[in-house]
Amino acid sequence: MKALIAGGSGYTGGELMRILLNHPKVQDVTATSRSLAGKMVADTHQSLRGIYERKFEEYNLSKADADVAFLAVPHGEGMELAPGLLGKGIKVVDLSADYRIRDRALYERYYTVHKNPELLGEAAYGLPELFRGEIGQARLVANPGCYSTAAILALAPLGVYKNRIDVTKVIVDAKSGTSGAGTKPTEFLHHCEVDGGLKIYKATGHRHQPEIEYILRRFLPEISVSFTPTLAPMIRGILSNAHVFGDLDGVDLRRHYMDFYKKERFIRVVDAAYTKNVVYSNFCDISPYYDQEKKRAVVASAIDNLVKGAAGQAVQNMNLIMGFDEKEGLNAIPYHP
Amino acid sequence: MKALIAGGSGYTGGELMRILLNHPKVQDVTATSRSLAGKMVADTHQSLRGIYERKFEEYNLSKADADVAFLAVPHGEGMELAPGLLGKGIKVVDLSADYRIRDRALYERYYTVHKNPELLGEAAYGLPELFRGEIGQARLVANPGCYSTAAILALAPLGVYKNRIDVTKVIVDAKSGTSGAGTKPTEFLHHCEVDGGLKIYKATGHRHQPEIEYILRRFLPEISVSFTPTLAPMIRGILSNAHVFGDLDGVDLRRHYMDFYKKERFIRVVDAAYTKNVVYSNFCDISPYYDQEKKRAVVASAIDNLVKGAAGQAVQNMNLIMGFDEKEGLNAIPYHP
Amino acid sequence: MKALIAGGSGYTGGELMRILLNHPKVQDVTATSRSLAGKMVADTHQSLRGIYERKFEEYNLSKADADVAFLAVPHGEGMELAPGLLGKGIKVVDLSADYRIRDRALYERYYTVHKNPELLGEAAYGLPELFRGEIGQARLVANPGCYSTAAILALAPLGVYKNRIDVTKVIVDAKSGTSGAGTKPTEFLHHCEVDGGLKIYKATGHRHQPEIEYILRRFLPEISVSFTPTLAPMIRGILSNAHVFGDLDGVDLRRHYMDFYKKERFIRVVDAAYTKNVVYSNFCDISPYYDQEKKRAVVASAIDNLVKGAAGQAVQNMNLIMGFDEKEGLNAIPYHP
Amino acid sequence: MKALIAGGSGYTGGELMRILLNHPKVQDVTATSRSLAGKMVADTHQSLRGIYERKFEEYNLSKADADVAFLAVPHGEGMELAPGLLGKGIKVVDLSADYRIRDRALYERYYTVHKNPELLGEAAYGLPELFRGEIGQARLVANPGCYSTAAILALAPLGVYKNRIDVTKVIVDAKSGTSGAGTKPTEFLHHCEVDGGLKIYKATGHRHQPEIEYILRRFLPEISVSFTPTLAPMIRGILSNAHVFGDLDGVDLRRHYMDFYKKERFIRVVDAAYTKNVVYSNFCDISPYYDQEKKRAVVASAIDNLVKGAAGQAVQNMNLIMGFDEKEGLNAIPYHP
Repeated sequence: MKALIAGGSGYTGGELMRILLNHPKVQDVTATSRSLAGKMVADTHQSLRGIYERKFEEYNLSKADADVAFLAVPHGEGMELAPGLLGKGIKVVDLSADYRIRDRALYERYYTVHKNPELLGEAAYGLPELFRGEIGQARLVANPGCYSTAAILALAPLGVYKNRIDVTKVIVDAKSGTSGAGTKPTEFLHHCEVDGGLKIYKATGHRHQPEIEYILRRFLPEISVSFTPTLAPMIRGILSNAHVFGDLDGVDLRRHYMDFYKKERFIRVVDAAYTKNVVYSNFCDISPYYDQEKKRAVVASAIDNLVKGAAGQAVQNMNLIMGFDEKEGLNAIPYHP
Repeated sequence: MKALIAGGSGYTGGELMRILLNHPKVQDVTATSRSLAGKMVADTHQSLRGIYERKFEEYNLSKADADVAFLAVPHGEGMELAPGLLGKGIKVVDLSADYRIRDRALYERYYTVHKNPELLGEAAYGLPELFRGEIGQARLVANPGCYSTAAILALAPLGVYKNRIDVTKVIVDAKSGTSGAGTKPTEFLHHCEVDGGLKIYKATGHRHQPEIEYILRRFLPEISVSFTPTLAPMIRGILSNAHVFGDLDGVDLRRHYMDFYKKERFIRVVDAAYTKNVVYSNFCDISPYYDQEKKRAVVASAIDNLVKGAAGQAVQNMNLIMGFDEKEGLNAIPYHP
Repeated sequence: MKALIAGGSGYTGGELMRILLNHPKVQDVTATSRSLAGKMVADTHQSLRGIYERKFEEYNLSKADADVAFLAVPHGEGMELAPGLLGKGIKVVDLSADYRIRDRALYERYYTVHKNPELLGEAAYGLPELFRGEIGQARLVANPGCYSTAAILALAPLGVYKNRIDVTKVIVDAKSGTSGAGTKPTEFLHHCEVDGGLKIYKATGHRHQPEIEYILRRFLPEISVSFTPTLAPMIRGILSNAHVFGDLDGVDLRRHYMDFYKKERFIRVVDAAYTKNVVYSNFCDISPYYDQEKKRAVVASAIDNLVKGAAGQAVQNMNLIMGFDEKEGLNAIPYHP
Repeated sequence: MKALIAGGSGYTGGELMRILLNHPKVQDVTATSRSLAGKMVADTHQSLRGIYERKFEEYNLSKADADVAFLAVPHGEGMELAPGLLGKGIKVVDLSADYRIRDRALYERYYTVHKNPELLGEAAYGLPELFRGEIGQARLVANPGCYSTAAILALAPLGVYKNRIDVTKVIVDAKSGTSGAGTKPTEFLHHCEVDGGLKIYKATGHRHQPEIEYILRRFLPEISVSFTPTLAPMIRGILSNAHVFGDLDGVDLRRHYMDFYKKERFIRVVDAAYTKNVVYSNFCDISPYYDQEKKRAVVASAIDNLVKGAAGQAVQNMNLIMGFDEKEGLNAIPYHP
């Protein structure tokens, strides 16, 4: 099959290339970039030197020749590109936020005017462990946000306890490495300014908050999630702690998580979620804890923000919509150390 | 004056030396170490080479000759040393946990049998910004835990809103650099194993939780705090996020914090707490936020775990009990970058 | 085929597992460990959880059932194991230093008494780009040291200029991440003690110096190499600068390097060697420069010390001795970022 | 006294402020910035919040009112400002390269046309340990480059052996943290792109090479130095290895270094130079080694590039030209850890 990456110059675009170039079912990978068209891809993604010796192309719908297109573009641009591609029979995995929330008003409140709301209803939310069936049927998949992936996978299993937890006071306190903030050099991401430090940012009102809440309501109908991120001095990885009050039992809770995800290749229920055990892979490690005295659960989850939180999950979605084994091309084993 | 550091081989002991050696009122600093007695201090704290060319001494109460003794020892050992020193008229700043919680049963539940509970009542909790008066009168000061310092300074100002917040569901999600875990080489702290990663640990039941709660009840009588720490890939610094539900107002909240701490040299109310702006100094930076929609406040606080979270605060306490200017020896300006 | 890893608990052993578990020609991987026999491998190499759910075994020659054995053991132990394995017809890739230097006296000067010097003559030095033919014929391969790999690949092409360079004054100044120093927790490798700093160590007399020199004499017969390593605050990667005086030409030099390695998949001649472009892969990036004024060449080379510097190269050697495509199992693309 | 910092917005400017604000002889510190005039200094150097609540000013010679001016400006701008300030009787410590090399042609070859070469003769090279007397007499001091400081302090003591070493083949292989590359956000210094990696840059022809050589010729008249820098994944610190061939003796060498610097407060001859023992302080740690077999000395030196390599040394120079104790304001003790 042939894959097209629209927006190949960012870290997510590069990561898609890395995975797709080693994917056994993918014969051709083309990357476009508005700003870098005509430049060698390996001048930007220098680790690809000697591996991928082609140039970024201009995005040109009329010449698009692919089975699946990945939209690794900013929010607002996914919806510019998706309809044309779908119209040509090209399936779309959109890594922007544009089709993640079916509630148009909610989307528009956090982002911008939606240009093709009629597509919202048919887009599948691309979290395979929870919505595998829908994704397999879809021609348009909305790939989840990175924080959303970590938080939703941690909290969805609590659906079974929905009457025993206080769904109105759920806190998600998450920490991300700097690759989540993109390629653009800014003072905020200047090495000297960020290395060795932890900084709270977007303490309230982060755009992943409505996404997390909207999707989780399929499991916990009344849930209200308060989300706060922190920038951590590392390149890759998200560690998310979800704090939930309720009358549970620690042993049961852990057993339930193991059961809930027991058939999932990419989800491991572990003793202590640690980003180093998942980065550079498509795994999500989850650790549920319960404090009997405080009647509080804390569910930690760890992912690589660029793999399970973006490009890896996108390929997992591609595998589903193409009818491949869901794990194809995603067998990378994480590193130690 | 003369200062004695019992337990000088750890990071807190080294940091005490660094501060006291440049303190204008301190003429003599002696450091003891059980394991390293007879060895040069600068072989352990190598940055002191050429600055402090003395050896670690055996701890010997009968020869102790100091105005103030700092107990930089593990929990359980502070109470071994304090009575003897006090008996000789030496004032004590205990950096172990032994005198932090006046409730003997609570202490013993989390630590061990207390050997001199009669001293619990007279020990002042060494958080000068909140208990300056008591500290100034005391001969025994219990220096707060590092996480406790960050959390209590962030939450105490909420006392004024005690009837408008849900004191039963307060979450403190804190992250610390590795120096907080001490000098002992272990796999957990081996560079390869920890660098570049974030790991949840002691997700429930951390010993600083009862300390935070016990002290905060002087401001928020019914408060119940759930505390979860994360190990972050950096050497120094704690960033603590305190999440509190309640019916507040964001502008008021910020103004109140600025007002509450307006006379405090070492506390700065800032836009976004960032450990890099405080490490290597005695500052605590605090950022209060409020999410009107979720009716949730999040108060971030940042300290250097070894300075404001340990040795710096201990010297601040020494200044108070000796009647010096509270800021003496603590004028270090943090670095950029 | 079946692979046996003797000494599976270290970082090199873990890296061998990671590569072999995804190798298309390897059906079975067994790992032994003296200290951890009976323990789950994934308790040590936690990133393997859910991927390899077997235990470390005792090393037992009589039960050894493998086509190739990898000896990921300390120096002195490779020669204990190799003869027995060879006697059973099992090919051996020895990652210890025991068979790297055919000059017994030189080996014994830097290491210890050799127990089977008769094997020295038949061991191939496992640097495929330079000794592919010999390796393909061998049943015993001495896998090069990590620093040696970086230095030899950088300097061997200078053989063609041997009469124009001063072979008596070659400096190799190399820097390595901390994973090269192994798994044992020590103060030297304690996160706090090493993060954020650069330290010279083993400034003269490092054991890789005679290895580099001995092998390079096949290209530059009179060469004398002075080698000095530095510990760098990162987990993986070696950057080696080889400084050579001589009457060369910069353009020619670069062209010669490109030509020398033009058929090599794993060697890239690049503008500026950078460890980030090679870590987690089997690539070696090389940058030759020439300063006309000073008549000095500097050849920088970058590798992942655990991959091209150890386990990856070992698998490359296995591929050669088994007659597989040399690149099998080694197609990992490095990351950005 | 009053200090003026021209160019206060960079890291060197910020570091000057940090040191001068705690300097016992300095009553007033004014910082100018072309780009940030009118903005709060603490918005740029955020760690100064609550400590220095003034704005950057426009540079205005006619209003300049200071005893000493520090020129923390790019090369080419120091010579624009110095004559005017000197004309008003203000002493100048120039941190640009403009007065470091008295050989006008050599300066112009590496930099630009010199605008006031008549001042070259009177500028003292501001390395107090070597040129204390000249500096004390000067009204214009050229503050050394960061790499130059590390290299010259390491090599100058070899002057005594000048007939026993090969002065034509001296290699300086140095590594610097990222703060040496300045405040401007670029891809080169973007956290993701630089963290965890080592990169060679400016392998030949770095501007500090002629400076090092020019100054060292006062000790080693015929010396030719080949200099190559590497960017290291840390914020502060330079580790420089100087490799020198010659017929020396290791014990003598070390003793000579200890003797050469025995009266120097800021230079420590140590077993293994390590940046962590010097960063955030004005120390330079030096480790001389000698390999008898190879007849090679390697002298490692470690400094904080922003302190001994820039602002700290500038204040040391200010102390000399003002007749203060050379150590005033520079008593900061480095940290552990």
